[in-house]
Amino acid sequence: MLWYEKKLTTPAISSRIRLARNIEGIPFPSNLSPEKMQETNKMICESIKQCNFDGLKLREINMTNLGDIESYAMVERHCISPNFARNRDGRILLLSEDESVSVMIGEEDHLRIQVLGAGECLTEAYSLCDKLETEISRVLKFSFDEKLGYLTECPTNLGTGLRASIMLHLPVLESTRQLNSIADAVSKIGLTFRGFYGEGSDSKASFYQLSNQITLGVSEQSAVENLKNIANQIIAKENEALLLLDRFNLTDTACRSFGILKYARKLSTEEMMKHMTRLMLSERAGIILLPDSVKLMSVFIGAQPSMIRRIKGDVSPTERDKFRADLLRETFKNIDV
Amino acid sequence: MLWYEKKLTTPAISSRIRLARNIEGIPFPSNLSPEKMQETNKMICESIKQCNFDGLKLREINMTNLGDIESYAMVERHCISPNFARNRDGRILLLSEDESVSVMIGEEDHLRIQVLGAGECLTEAYSLCDKLETEISRVLKFSFDEKLGYLTECPTNLGTGLRASIMLHLPVLESTRQLNSIADAVSKIGLTFRGFYGEGSDSKASFYQLSNQITLGVSEQSAVENLKNIANQIIAKENEALLLLDRFNLTDTACRSFGILKYARKLSTEEMMKHMTRLMLSERAGIILLPDSVKLMSVFIGAQPSMIRRIKGDVSPTERDKFRADLLRETFKNIDV
Repeated sequence: MLWYEKKLTTPAISSRIRLARNIEGIPFPSNLSPEKMQETNKMICESIKQCNFDGLKLREINMTNLGDIESYAMVERHCISPNFARNRDGRILLLSEDESVSVMIGEEDHLRIQVLGAGECLTEAYSLCDKLETEISRVLKFSFDEKLGYLTECPTNLGTGLRASIMLHLPVLESTRQLNSIADAVSKIGLTFRGFYGEGSDSKASFYQLSNQITLGVSEQSAVENLKNIANQIIAKENEALLLLDRFNLTDTACRSFGILKYARKLSTEEMMKHMTRLMLSERAGIILLPDSVKLMSVFIGAQPSMIRRIKGDVSPTERDKFRADLLRETFKNIDV
Repeated sequence: MLWYEKKLTTPAISSRIRLARNIEGIPFPSNLSPEKMQETNKMICESIKQCNFDGLKLREINMTNLGDIESYAMVERHCISPNFARNRDGRILLLSEDESVSVMIGEEDHLRIQVLGAGECLTEAYSLCDKLETEISRVLKFSFDEKLGYLTECPTNLGTGLRASIMLHLPVLESTRQLNSIADAVSKIGLTFRGFYGEGSDSKASFYQLSNQITLGVSEQSAVENLKNIANQIIAKENEALLLLDRFNLTDTACRSFGILKYARKLSTEEMMKHMTRLMLSERAGIILLPDSVKLMSVFIGAQPSMIRRIKGDVSPTERDKFRADLLRETFKNIDV
């Protein structure tokens, strides 16, 4: 099952752990010639293939051969970073079948090991990521400094090389304008709030990524624990704020959104996300209970631009809006609220 | 069948003919004491009761005893004028069972004889109204001046005492901003454009009343013919303009409106009218074909404020908005587009 195919009942949408590692004795990717980088990436890939991940299989994807559509659809599914999708030449991706584990070879660092899961599963994701990294460290010697820790291209990753993040769906805190003060507060304790697709992206449909900033002078475990604690506090705040809202108005708003998604003949990504977010909230509030077969997050991801281009090809935005509406209409056909 | 229970396929919603008449030798209602007016109205009513209207039965309604809710619900059904609903003391209404014929006794004039019908039926409505007036003239002597014609309280009715009007649904001409020039043009040939409930009312949901202004120096027949010709030209313009619109966009808009009406939990009158008007237009354009059992104009009238108060009593606007949404949800239950 893909991470977004799980039925969620909390504002915690997904958790992600990634570890940045570089190989001792080889310059960072940005300092390598294209040929040397390609050679390095191949060497890393071959080494990892020798690893034993307890039965976990990683498929090798040559990013050079992957088209824009498939690459950006991977970004939409959070398998890879936007940066990795943009700069694919000579890069290699290792990806598990359920897409929960990915290893980007030749991103900003030689290795970005990522574990992704539905809901709040930071500890579990970290535990798996740490295992993978330990196994890989058997076959590849990572650049490590006794004082600084793991060396990374960007100083913000120096030390643990760990980025732990959790995607939170916070429509209530957003609409009641409590997010700025939360963002301020978390920044003071070494965390940061970001948009839907990480660094530099806007918040979409009330999704926010909370992640650790500090990688130096802390243990990986304490960084994960810290993030987890703060995330749980924000989740509790969102849930409490939800209880204060007028349920009748929530019902009206969600049912209207349902009606639009069920019947519209064209839907932009933005509009789809706006209405889907209302449905997600209402489902969480126990107001609209959709059948188990309908996984809103899965519909949400499946209706993103590149996910549609994967099916329909490189059609115009107008055609995508039509197809998106068809998708939604099909999803909610035979369902009433 | 009530006029609004007919399934309509043109922009012509309803036609109305009314004749203003006063009784010779009795001052206009505004010049009578309340007692004298009441006495006059009773006398008129008793006289009309002696008439033979070819089997048409008119029920006598003592407006003094009628409450606000029932009175304004009659305005919403176009049975009586807003003025007659406001000033009910001592007034009498004669109303046919299908509400197509009404005689207001003690409105601005002693008698206002009205015939109302669905669609464009001006000639037929005039023919019936003329028959009723002729029959009433057997038992009551109307104030008539050889030179001026029928005498009325307001000089704008002097002459024929006739007001012929047709309610047109013109969403396309409205949205393409062609109505101002039409209103200008018709005013030059003695017609006038008004809102949904006649004089002094705003247009609601793209409904416009086109009526004759000139009552002096024209025959009743030619006034009706003139109105009918112009109305048909405007109807043709609306239909032509509809053909120029993008059908896909029309479908999308109408289906969204359908979705909102089908699922919303609260609906103001204004919002209901906005979405209903889109459904009516789409039905006319052959885009959304609702089952024969769904008469949009009937739903539209039934969801007006006083029509709801008739059922629910004098509840708050918020409660009415909820009940209105319930009505619409019930209407579109089991219907898909």
